[in-house]
Amino acid sequence: MAIPSPLTDAERARLPEVLPDWSVVEGRDAIQRTYRFADFSTAWAFMSRGALSAEQLGHHPEWFNVYNRVEVVLTTHDCGGLSELDVALARALDTFARPLVEPAD
Amino acid sequence: MAIPSPLTDAERARLPEVLPDWSVVEGRDAIQRTYRFADFSTAWAFMSRGALSAEQLGHHPEWFNVYNRVEVVLTTHDCGGLSELDVALARALDTFARPLVEPAD
Amino acid sequence: MAIPSPLTDAERARLPEVLPDWSVVEGRDAIQRTYRFADFSTAWAFMSRGALSAEQLGHHPEWFNVYNRVEVVLTTHDCGGLSELDVALARALDTFARPLVEPAD
Amino acid sequence: MAIPSPLTDAERARLPEVLPDWSVVEGRDAIQRTYRFADFSTAWAFMSRGALSAEQLGHHPEWFNVYNRVEVVLTTHDCGGLSELDVALARALDTFARPLVEPAD
Repeated sequence: MAIPSPLTDAERARLPEVLPDWSVVEGRDAIQRTYRFADFSTAWAFMSRGALSAEQLGHHPEWFNVYNRVEVVLTTHDCGGLSELDVALARALDTFARPLVEPAD
Repeated sequence: MAIPSPLTDAERARLPEVLPDWSVVEGRDAIQRTYRFADFSTAWAFMSRGALSAEQLGHHPEWFNVYNRVEVVLTTHDCGGLSELDVALARALDTFARPLVEPAD
Repeated sequence: MAIPSPLTDAERARLPEVLPDWSVVEGRDAIQRTYRFADFSTAWAFMSRGALSAEQLGHHPEWFNVYNRVEVVLTTHDCGGLSELDVALARALDTFARPLVEPAD
Repeated sequence: MAIPSPLTDAERARLPEVLPDWSVVEGRDAIQRTYRFADFSTAWAFMSRGALSAEQLGHHPEWFNVYNRVEVVLTTHDCGGLSELDVALARALDTFARPLVEPAD
């Protein structure tokens, strides 16, 4: 697989629109989002789909889970910062979370 | 864990109401349902939650998967037929499938 | 992804050597293997790795599980029979099963 | 489920023997271990079994994963510190990791 290119300035400028629920990690060229679900079972369904996408993309998240909470940090070690792989994985994770997140969340 | 009791006649009579999407397997004291999802990833999210419930209940499904389809057969080997464990697992699976199944399904 | 080519006669002739634990399914151009593990948890670890490989290859098994048993059938619907994708997935599954299968199995 | 009791002093004294690969977290009544596997797929097989045990015990880890590394922290929020549930989950995780960890690790 080719080494992914870092995001261009134009692509970075569009991040808040493309990934409105993600924020930039302080001191790292990385983005983060915390998901909250009803319980561990729902969080695990989300992570199980995320694992499939990660393996498919050949691009793996830094993620932390306790019970119903999943904290995800994305960056691309091979290019030293954010790449289109991070955007692709973030979008996939958002898609997977949508039907599983509590309506009131 | 105590050996589960077989369903009583009264409990069996209520099955079509309690589990309307399940049907009786011909020639076995067992119930079955087939779930269809958008793709393998969604089917796998469903199965991943189902696996957690199965292990928690100490009661495991007979299940077949190909791509977006999951066929489940439930019976309780320890009591030679349907028990309340099958009803509990079927209800859990139905709950897990609901947000993941396509609206048009 | 390009449509995979059916296995050549030469590739088929080598199957018993490449995949010694698999057998041909009667009446279908498909191969099958049944894995037995110590319990559901171990079988599920195997299936969880298999799911990652399936999604990565874009090629999904027909698989049946009950408790500690996993029956896998592989064929490539897009080319109407066995292809190199089946060989790749079968080899991956065998690799995943090896450390998990009971020594005495 | 009854609220688990905190570990007694005698049980704490035995921890280094019972869980030799775990260490105490600084500033918390918690234990931690980091597992390293060959790749994400192997780490995920481990986590998938761990998820089953967590749900079965009704006791969930704080765990972080990136690629082949899984960092686990265990404590029992309901009793404000370590309980027998943490010991049970730690032992289960160690059992699951054993066949999956690289021989040279």
